[in-house]
Amino acid sequence: MRRICLQIEYDGTDFAGWQRQSNSPSIQEEIEKNLYKITGEIITVHGSGRTDSGVHALAQIAHFDTESRMPAEKFTIALNCGLPGSIRIHKSYEVSEGFHSRFSAKRKYYRYTIENCSIATAVNRLYQYHVHVPLQIEPMQQAAEMFRGTHNFASFTTIKCPLERTIRTIYQSYIEKHDQQITFHIEGSGFLYNMVRIMIGLIIDVGKNRATLDDIRFALENPDKKRYVAATAPAHGLTLMEVFY
Amino acid sequence: MRRICLQIEYDGTDFAGWQRQSNSPSIQEEIEKNLYKITGEIITVHGSGRTDSGVHALAQIAHFDTESRMPAEKFTIALNCGLPGSIRIHKSYEVSEGFHSRFSAKRKYYRYTIENCSIATAVNRLYQYHVHVPLQIEPMQQAAEMFRGTHNFASFTTIKCPLERTIRTIYQSYIEKHDQQITFHIEGSGFLYNMVRIMIGLIIDVGKNRATLDDIRFALENPDKKRYVAATAPAHGLTLMEVFY
Repeated sequence: MRRICLQIEYDGTDFAGWQRQSNSPSIQEEIEKNLYKITGEIITVHGSGRTDSGVHALAQIAHFDTESRMPAEKFTIALNCGLPGSIRIHKSYEVSEGFHSRFSAKRKYYRYTIENCSIATAVNRLYQYHVHVPLQIEPMQQAAEMFRGTHNFASFTTIKCPLERTIRTIYQSYIEKHDQQITFHIEGSGFLYNMVRIMIGLIIDVGKNRATLDDIRFALENPDKKRYVAATAPAHGLTLMEVFY
Repeated sequence: MRRICLQIEYDGTDFAGWQRQSNSPSIQEEIEKNLYKITGEIITVHGSGRTDSGVHALAQIAHFDTESRMPAEKFTIALNCGLPGSIRIHKSYEVSEGFHSRFSAKRKYYRYTIENCSIATAVNRLYQYHVHVPLQIEPMQQAAEMFRGTHNFASFTTIKCPLERTIRTIYQSYIEKHDQQITFHIEGSGFLYNMVRIMIGLIIDVGKNRATLDDIRFALENPDKKRYVAATAPAHGLTLMEVFY
């Protein structure tokens, strides 16, 4: 038995997310279906984490085990032949038995893109969230920087879980602006369910002058209390950029 | 009766082209349907030219006549409310009766984008033509420059028409390369049916060492003869960038 690792890019638009579902197309299912065609084996592909419906990935990492003797790098071409153009394998390579795409991951880097102008563009509408209200960039930059460090992010998920499980470390968190495009870059030890989308939802509210930097400070210092609850920003602005091991 | 001009961006992916068709969605039909909702009038929208199925536009120009008294600039918001996100009106303004989006147009600027690498990207697949064979950029640049000036482009269309009607002037024609993206920019007095896609098809064949610069010279100098016939490059790499009046 060998363990093969895949580096996968996908346009999440037409999928119900990474994870296999009974009634909706998922990236995991597409890859598993094609691995069956190639190897004749029923294979489970393990991703570094789930991405939600509509979320994109530039370099999702996943692994699977196989009896196949095909050279590891050949899985790239073989899979791309059968996969839809919205999913592309960019690399395939053998890893040791001890490697696990999810448990071995040390850091993840996400990007969230906002288009801030009165009229959205047609061509990039599937990859950026359009906000027509002018956003104040400086407070947004300050807000983003506040997430850096180790905090309890219990206020930044839509799933209830014990408070001792919601501590994460954020290594990078900043906002860039180029013309009408505002980009949020965030790299951390891991992310809770919907965490990046709630963070950027709050940053957007700061840019709209609806929330304050103090609301963020409060949320980070009081994980057990609710004060300001930001809307979860839409999925299509989010891209999983890189997973570090 | 007033004449209103629209500046329109569209993602051509889901349309059978600009022009109204009986069974397929078109950009013209979508706009006319929404103008009917707004004004109650059956309105014909005249574009600066047709774009084929799958071709995109950053700034298509179109005009229509209406009895409506709504301020011209309000058509932008009113239309965007009803149109799908893949069609966006960026400007609407009144023009004189003598203006015609097609007949008054003096020049048009098109862009064709190629992604030249072994594995296509998923995210931009709808906006660039993927060529996996490595292309030689210098001969392609030389090829593009040969189109400049006034020539008879009879060899660069898929529709037969009298030779005296196929003369056009090309003001700009060049190739740029950034990493794995190759872009063809072309501006001319007008373009025949499929002309840009046949030009870039030929340029690509030059980049593959299948066609020569002499094949282009021959085609431009002998509009009545066929020697090297390039494949029409796929529609989705093409974008109408600007129309000049």
